[in-house]
Amino acid sequence: MTKTPTITFEGPVCPVPLRHNKSIVMGHGSGGKMTEDLIRQVFQKNFSNSFLDAGNDFASVQMPGPGGHLSISTDAHIVSPIFFPGGDIGKLAICGTVNDMSMSGAIPLYLTASFILEEGLDIDILEQVVISMQESANEAGVLVIAGDTKVVEKGKGDGIFISTTGIGWISDDKVIGGEKAQPGDAVIISGTIGDHGIAVLTARGEFSLESSVRSDVAPLNHMIAEILKVAPDTHVLRDPTRGGLATTLNEIARQSKVGIIIHEESIPITNAVQSTCELLGFDPLYVANEGKLIVIAPDVRKNEILEIIRNTKYGNHAAIIGEVVERNSEKVILKTQIGTSRILDVMAGEMLPRIC
Amino acid sequence: MTKTPTITFEGPVCPVPLRHNKSIVMGHGSGGKMTEDLIRQVFQKNFSNSFLDAGNDFASVQMPGPGGHLSISTDAHIVSPIFFPGGDIGKLAICGTVNDMSMSGAIPLYLTASFILEEGLDIDILEQVVISMQESANEAGVLVIAGDTKVVEKGKGDGIFISTTGIGWISDDKVIGGEKAQPGDAVIISGTIGDHGIAVLTARGEFSLESSVRSDVAPLNHMIAEILKVAPDTHVLRDPTRGGLATTLNEIARQSKVGIIIHEESIPITNAVQSTCELLGFDPLYVANEGKLIVIAPDVRKNEILEIIRNTKYGNHAAIIGEVVERNSEKVILKTQIGTSRILDVMAGEMLPRIC
Repeated sequence: MTKTPTITFEGPVCPVPLRHNKSIVMGHGSGGKMTEDLIRQVFQKNFSNSFLDAGNDFASVQMPGPGGHLSISTDAHIVSPIFFPGGDIGKLAICGTVNDMSMSGAIPLYLTASFILEEGLDIDILEQVVISMQESANEAGVLVIAGDTKVVEKGKGDGIFISTTGIGWISDDKVIGGEKAQPGDAVIISGTIGDHGIAVLTARGEFSLESSVRSDVAPLNHMIAEILKVAPDTHVLRDPTRGGLATTLNEIARQSKVGIIIHEESIPITNAVQSTCELLGFDPLYVANEGKLIVIAPDVRKNEILEIIRNTKYGNHAAIIGEVVERNSEKVILKTQIGTSRILDVMAGEMLPRIC
Repeated sequence: MTKTPTITFEGPVCPVPLRHNKSIVMGHGSGGKMTEDLIRQVFQKNFSNSFLDAGNDFASVQMPGPGGHLSISTDAHIVSPIFFPGGDIGKLAICGTVNDMSMSGAIPLYLTASFILEEGLDIDILEQVVISMQESANEAGVLVIAGDTKVVEKGKGDGIFISTTGIGWISDDKVIGGEKAQPGDAVIISGTIGDHGIAVLTARGEFSLESSVRSDVAPLNHMIAEILKVAPDTHVLRDPTRGGLATTLNEIARQSKVGIIIHEESIPITNAVQSTCELLGFDPLYVANEGKLIVIAPDVRKNEILEIIRNTKYGNHAAIIGEVVERNSEKVILKTQIGTSRILDVMAGEMLPRIC
């Protein structure tokens, strides 16, 4: 930890040295000396790169071009609690946005992060989150190039909220998107479902549940890069986050105007997630994931893709779970283990609030 | 207003039609059907463009290139109250980010917006804010291409927080930045100072003040484009937001390793702002602006630049207020009306919390 700095001061307002007062106070959001100290001692120290260090209100960056497009994505993160088995709000904020922009087949390059802090937040907790962000950014190979910090009064926020925006680069020959699924395509999932939602839920302690479930939060860009090497003709990449696998497949079915059939017995799920869901009456198909990938690609590619995914860090339990069909346009059908079929709709309201 | 939609439903959770319940509920942040309805009926309806309408988790955009850099900036907005004389949180969120990225001389192109809504927020208020965002985006000539919405429980937020990130394009020949001020340069301000901070403060009603002060919140990119036409050799552009004119000039002095002298009698300020500041013991040099521009450029350009600014929509009261000097490196000196000098430091803590 940084030692308490001595601040000399000639301005109109009384100063509070950053590490003397170990909590966030309103002055840390003022844009003045306290904000500057917080930026230097917590953000720049951990995110350090030439773009941030320049100290302008903008970061000026180059793209790997020539040509190509930008892939841009944004997310607000409000997970409660801030720390949970397998991750924290910082890891989630980086991975969530890295994953969203990677779903176009883009190479993720740059992230911005804006923080809304609640007065009274322990600065050590903030720093732990920032360190976790930098670790995830390192793993994904992206830079946090611009940021902002605001502070709200105690009771007007909840510790830390983080909004991240990602900027990636796509070569002009990439044509991946939710509207590209074709009848005959195979549907692959990169691993077990429901881990993130259940991990966060049990971390809250509301249900006096004990569970060994850890969040799957992880950056998926390296897995995607491997897939696109062997299957550049992949049609859809999508991470089933809020709303889970069922809601995400519905979005794809609607965008592509196709039907999707999935087979219950082929969907990977751990016993711990399955039993917790049964206990609480949740359907794991609607529980959020933060490190899983849906791949929709021509059927002839499915075995190669499966093998590639299984050889990546986060893909051990990948499985082929279904196929795209022409009939039942815009519907997702679950073939159950007992041989019946049911329509999976999108999730309506809220099953597990504040899981990302 | 949209009429109440009929939602048919076959999923695991009970639906709430968006306009039946006129307030934000937790389900609006679920990523399911309610989120989708909110996006369609409030966000897509008002921000409509092909990027958002594509419905992917990323927006794929092209830059005007070839060559050039991206200028990227991010801001969280937590202003309280949400509406104030001259603007609202939506106008602020768009203008703040348009202005930040314009300070590099970039052409602002795209914005992302992430919303953190408090349960119980009136959806009509949200829509009013979104409409205001789109009006400001239209004026600035930018598109909101990606967004995200999360909902927190009542008492864990404060109505609406909005984080915006901007992506602009700079041609490779632009070399504008806070580190470019040169001894001999002139310092110009585009109008009166302190209006935004005082307008928000009086809108809170805490001081039983009556005041005619309106926020100056405005997009400055068109003004900047005009300036750069006549003075492409401009060294620094910066908007004096949180921390006010004094704090912003200090940042520039430090980045450029120069001294800056400003002359009190030349700084434009309205009588209303001046008298409110005197009443409350505030120094207007530290009060936030949201539609003002500091220009630092070679002395020979100052009269041309002043004339150009005065001819723009938001520049009637522009003035030359000082000069960059070699001595007193990294210090900002105020020459007062009575002939004395004083060092202006950066603001330390918080004078006016939650003004942006």
